[in-house]
Amino acid sequence: MTLSTIPDLLRPASYISGRWHANPDGQTLLDAVYGRPVAVISSTGVDFAEALAYGRRAGAAIRRLTFHERARALKALGAYLMERKEAYYELSMLTGATRRDSWVDIEGGIGTLFSYASMARRDLPDERFWPDGRVERLGREGTFVGRHLLVPREGVAVQINAFNFPVWGMLEKLAPAFVGGMPSLVKPAPQTAYVTERVVRDIIASGLLPEGALQLVTGEPGDLLDHLLEQDMVAFTGSAATAAKLRVHPNVVARSVPFNAEADSLNASVLGLTVTPDAPEFALFVREVAREMTGKAGQKCTAIRRALVPSHLVEAVTDGLRRELAKVTLGDPARDDVRMGALVSVEQRERVRDTLRRLQAEARVVISGEAELRGGDREQGAFLDPTVLLCESPLTATGPHELEAFGPVATLLPYDSLEDAVILTKLGRGSLAGSIVTHDRAEATELVLGMASSHGRLLVLNRDNAKENTGHGSPLPQLNHGGPGRAGGGSELGGLSAVRHHMNRVAVQADPTTLTAITREFVPGAAVTEDAVHPFRKSFDEIEVGDSLLTHRRTVTEADIVNFAGLTGDHFYAHVDEIGAKEGIFGRRVAHGYFLISAAAGQFVSAAPGPVLANYGLENLRFTLPVGIGDTIRTRLTCKRKIRKDLRPGETRPTGVVEWRSEITNQDGALVATYDILTLVERARDAFDPPLDAAPA
Amino acid sequence: MTLSTIPDLLRPASYISGRWHANPDGQTLLDAVYGRPVAVISSTGVDFAEALAYGRRAGAAIRRLTFHERARALKALGAYLMERKEAYYELSMLTGATRRDSWVDIEGGIGTLFSYASMARRDLPDERFWPDGRVERLGREGTFVGRHLLVPREGVAVQINAFNFPVWGMLEKLAPAFVGGMPSLVKPAPQTAYVTERVVRDIIASGLLPEGALQLVTGEPGDLLDHLLEQDMVAFTGSAATAAKLRVHPNVVARSVPFNAEADSLNASVLGLTVTPDAPEFALFVREVAREMTGKAGQKCTAIRRALVPSHLVEAVTDGLRRELAKVTLGDPARDDVRMGALVSVEQRERVRDTLRRLQAEARVVISGEAELRGGDREQGAFLDPTVLLCESPLTATGPHELEAFGPVATLLPYDSLEDAVILTKLGRGSLAGSIVTHDRAEATELVLGMASSHGRLLVLNRDNAKENTGHGSPLPQLNHGGPGRAGGGSELGGLSAVRHHMNRVAVQADPTTLTAITREFVPGAAVTEDAVHPFRKSFDEIEVGDSLLTHRRTVTEADIVNFAGLTGDHFYAHVDEIGAKEGIFGRRVAHGYFLISAAAGQFVSAAPGPVLANYGLENLRFTLPVGIGDTIRTRLTCKRKIRKDLRPGETRPTGVVEWRSEITNQDGALVATYDILTLVERARDAFDPPLDAAPA
Repeated sequence: MTLSTIPDLLRPASYISGRWHANPDGQTLLDAVYGRPVAVISSTGVDFAEALAYGRRAGAAIRRLTFHERARALKALGAYLMERKEAYYELSMLTGATRRDSWVDIEGGIGTLFSYASMARRDLPDERFWPDGRVERLGREGTFVGRHLLVPREGVAVQINAFNFPVWGMLEKLAPAFVGGMPSLVKPAPQTAYVTERVVRDIIASGLLPEGALQLVTGEPGDLLDHLLEQDMVAFTGSAATAAKLRVHPNVVARSVPFNAEADSLNASVLGLTVTPDAPEFALFVREVAREMTGKAGQKCTAIRRALVPSHLVEAVTDGLRRELAKVTLGDPARDDVRMGALVSVEQRERVRDTLRRLQAEARVVISGEAELRGGDREQGAFLDPTVLLCESPLTATGPHELEAFGPVATLLPYDSLEDAVILTKLGRGSLAGSIVTHDRAEATELVLGMASSHGRLLVLNRDNAKENTGHGSPLPQLNHGGPGRAGGGSELGGLSAVRHHMNRVAVQADPTTLTAITREFVPGAAVTEDAVHPFRKSFDEIEVGDSLLTHRRTVTEADIVNFAGLTGDHFYAHVDEIGAKEGIFGRRVAHGYFLISAAAGQFVSAAPGPVLANYGLENLRFTLPVGIGDTIRTRLTCKRKIRKDLRPGETRPTGVVEWRSEITNQDGALVATYDILTLVERARDAFDPPLDAAPA
Repeated sequence: MTLSTIPDLLRPASYISGRWHANPDGQTLLDAVYGRPVAVISSTGVDFAEALAYGRRAGAAIRRLTFHERARALKALGAYLMERKEAYYELSMLTGATRRDSWVDIEGGIGTLFSYASMARRDLPDERFWPDGRVERLGREGTFVGRHLLVPREGVAVQINAFNFPVWGMLEKLAPAFVGGMPSLVKPAPQTAYVTERVVRDIIASGLLPEGALQLVTGEPGDLLDHLLEQDMVAFTGSAATAAKLRVHPNVVARSVPFNAEADSLNASVLGLTVTPDAPEFALFVREVAREMTGKAGQKCTAIRRALVPSHLVEAVTDGLRRELAKVTLGDPARDDVRMGALVSVEQRERVRDTLRRLQAEARVVISGEAELRGGDREQGAFLDPTVLLCESPLTATGPHELEAFGPVATLLPYDSLEDAVILTKLGRGSLAGSIVTHDRAEATELVLGMASSHGRLLVLNRDNAKENTGHGSPLPQLNHGGPGRAGGGSELGGLSAVRHHMNRVAVQADPTTLTAITREFVPGAAVTEDAVHPFRKSFDEIEVGDSLLTHRRTVTEADIVNFAGLTGDHFYAHVDEIGAKEGIFGRRVAHGYFLISAAAGQFVSAAPGPVLANYGLENLRFTLPVGIGDTIRTRLTCKRKIRKDLRPGETRPTGVVEWRSEITNQDGALVATYDILTLVERARDAFDPPLDAAPA
């Protein structure tokens, strides 16, 4: 297969205010491989003020969903798009990307939907707000407490994306925005907007997201930013120069609109000083640099631009890179025997060539050459061969640390000490990603801690993780993507961090009972409910936060301690050795802590089969006072919070998680232990809603 | 006592690059009460480029301290300043503040030092970096993992403060910056800079902070912002207009310098619809509005500017406020019988009067009048009587939601439904603080959740917390201070959130053993160390992260289950009822979860007296597989992390906290339970350093 047949001219449209806006005329884009007209794009006629107003109204429908409902929608959407991925691969080849390049973009992008779906269900409550952090006691008596809540911003998340990842760039922003409760208005870069548009068509057709959750501007952004309001936000990926321009837009500034920027940076990879040419790490380094240079034809904001190499290894590394890069075949990305496609456009190639010329003021080319092209048009297509430079005096040079050739270009920087290596990486003035290739843990530690303040992500690559590591340039949903200074000073992904950016964190101060009512999590000191029915005899749906049981008392005897020691084998002196215990911190024999929580369970458990199926975990256990022979304990068990669970396919017994706060007190009413118990509780059969999630588990 | 005697002219200086810069001439400030010259200030001659460079170099000394060492220094500083507070009270009166006003500023400010000192010691490791969040498994085999670290930004925290809290404003920014490892360069507002300077003199004289941790610019900021670098940051408090101006400074933008803004806003207090005139909440509301209007003469960025009152209660509230405000005596703040002092300057009073005039386009004055002055000069001093306005159509008016009279002024806004109340609060376009006065939990919940997206902090005030609540306008170190939109879009305080703003969050990817070495916290899957000495026989200083013990095995028998049920009283059917258990989720009788962790302790505990003093807590317990009769368990105990503890005055037995990861496996090697155990372990006598902390506990 090749791209040599002429494709139909695409007319990607904008999707605004619930309808597609046809695009009769506009800018003509050429394909990257043969340079033929491929698409015409324009946003002429789009009413941006109305688009934002529409999005803001639509936000209410997203905010009505709980986090788990939003997560299920994202998961279903991921499955829906995955079934349609081949269409995206096909279009992507017109942008110069190989199938491998597009795998990151398309399946990596869809993977982000799955990741956010599972993080949200794992770590967020099934609510519309997110109680954050601990309950703070704000007065001595405990009548005044505070806690933070995160709630969705009631505006539109405007997302301005770069040309290099038309699918991932959209989905990695859309996923956390949607989980956070915000609608997205996506503005892809024109060059590859037709790929984004294709995916948006499927998303809209799927009907899996609430109407208005996604709008698309194909073409120029017009006066979009003029209409932003205080609750909107902007997430930008692209060049530092454009970020700087948009960030100071008067309306963005006047309304304190959050502006998150992720800009490409001069990322470094460091080959450790301890690595020898025959060590596995040497080969890993060479392969990683070559891969980062040629993947996506080097058009990645995280790519390695600066390869830091111990001075004595520069020649060996150069030789290794020459061999590795010689294997890289250029041409039509649709061909199986092609490893590197084209840059996105000939204009982009000219920019890279220009930067390459400027870099040569302080560095010389050590690897270059023109490979035979396997398909594609060398002049009309945007092909560029990999080029490696060497800068002999990197500590005094400026070009290699400032000039970014956004293509298959890297510069070798020799260094002689770890201190110098750290200084060199910092000359990049802030980077998205850095890597350190060494098997020496001390060396890795020194470099990581030295480079940490100026990087958003650092990878240590060595033989131990060679097989599983995801590479220098790959952002992961769980980990931060962004960096200080030159990298834009922003943060994307990083697990639920990205969700938080779409929410407002508000501190709520109240009395414990009111705070319990607001957050639906029991706050110590709040009023409890005691009724005739044992809480363990209620189904998940019948249990209410605050339902409480105060047990009978039990006097702890010497026999209890002795028997517990014998049964468990725990003969720790504080429990069984009169002499040792007297000299120990308690001054007397005390009951085992585990005896106390076990006896407390004996006090509050309802023994017969019932809705409470199992105690599967425990958190926050603290033993606050010792319990000795003759002390009498009693336990209060209170429902702290409830977490609905999805019924998985094939599962017949719907359940939920109920978290109970347990407080054991002694005869003086003083707390001796507090902890939270996690139980699995059956739902009332009739209360259960069928799962929304049609996707496979 | 009064301020009627003429004070000596003050010449507050700048403290830059380790020395005081005398200030021969400059702007003359007048005192707020009698209008006499009180100080001359100027920053002429200060080299800001050098100041920043000096601060950056000084940062290294702060970063060499651990979080706990920084915390101890802050605590000692707090005690040092508290002993000298009377000097600050005296100077503050010249700014128009009463002793009560200054209590918030001075003792509230010093309290922030204590709060950050204790939060850092409670919640941060005794390290120079902060491992953040969970370890993420990035590959199926477990050879590739990731975690976030927070490390200090390697620049200077430039702190630009407002005139109203010359002490608190400095200390609430300095404390989290210092804990986060950054030096501060403080630029107070000129009007009250002489109070700030007095405190800085004491801080420098104390020698308790490393040299360079604090610099002070008294006067104009000159070209300060032109010299910022990527690792610096700016925290600004003041007007929205100035924030907007500084935020777009070309160098701030070009270098992605984080800019945090906290701007005063049109904060609202809502009297609930359910409140009747005879309810305690009615009186609480009236008192709170009056207090917020007159405290600091209304010059608080969090003060109540809009009082939302059910329409049928407007008259009653107006009467109540009239009575309450009649008690407010104006005059020389040094006099005991004065409740409200002066605004900071006559210029400021003119601004307020002007805004008051503009407000009257849509609201009419319902309470005003000129009280007799008790000391001070009505013309030369900046006195202004409390004024209450009423806006009859607040849903259509704009002035009350946009025009801020930064003085003793508030506007009553009638409303008829909770929906309208929420809409009215949001017309402020983002507020620092809001309050809701009601005893009805449902009403409080609806208002809090409705107002949450547009506020930084919300207080529910009612009879239950009336005694302990800290008031609508008081930021607390534990809770967020900042707000979206009009409030500047920033965030200060909020517990360790503010510390995070001074740090860079970097994702670190590596194999588990390398990640353990870097973070000094054991990562599951990392290499462990097993030696001949039982880990419980090692002192805190001898134990190393990764030290591990694999115990003998134990087969769980029916007798174990029966005996455990009998001893604890836990006869849950899954353990003791053959019929019920068969029908239950495990399909057979299983051991009690608490038996497993108790028997595991029996396997790993070293019984004789030794360095491990007590198991005082447990975290993250999960039972992952049931254990039935005949199953055989074995436990691996591995040192996960160590936390040094301070020796408190009078304490003779130095200890530390050691956290152990415990993994119980069955005969197939499958995990049946995992958890983390917290133990108190004695330190080696000779390894213990005397505490740095000379301050009382």
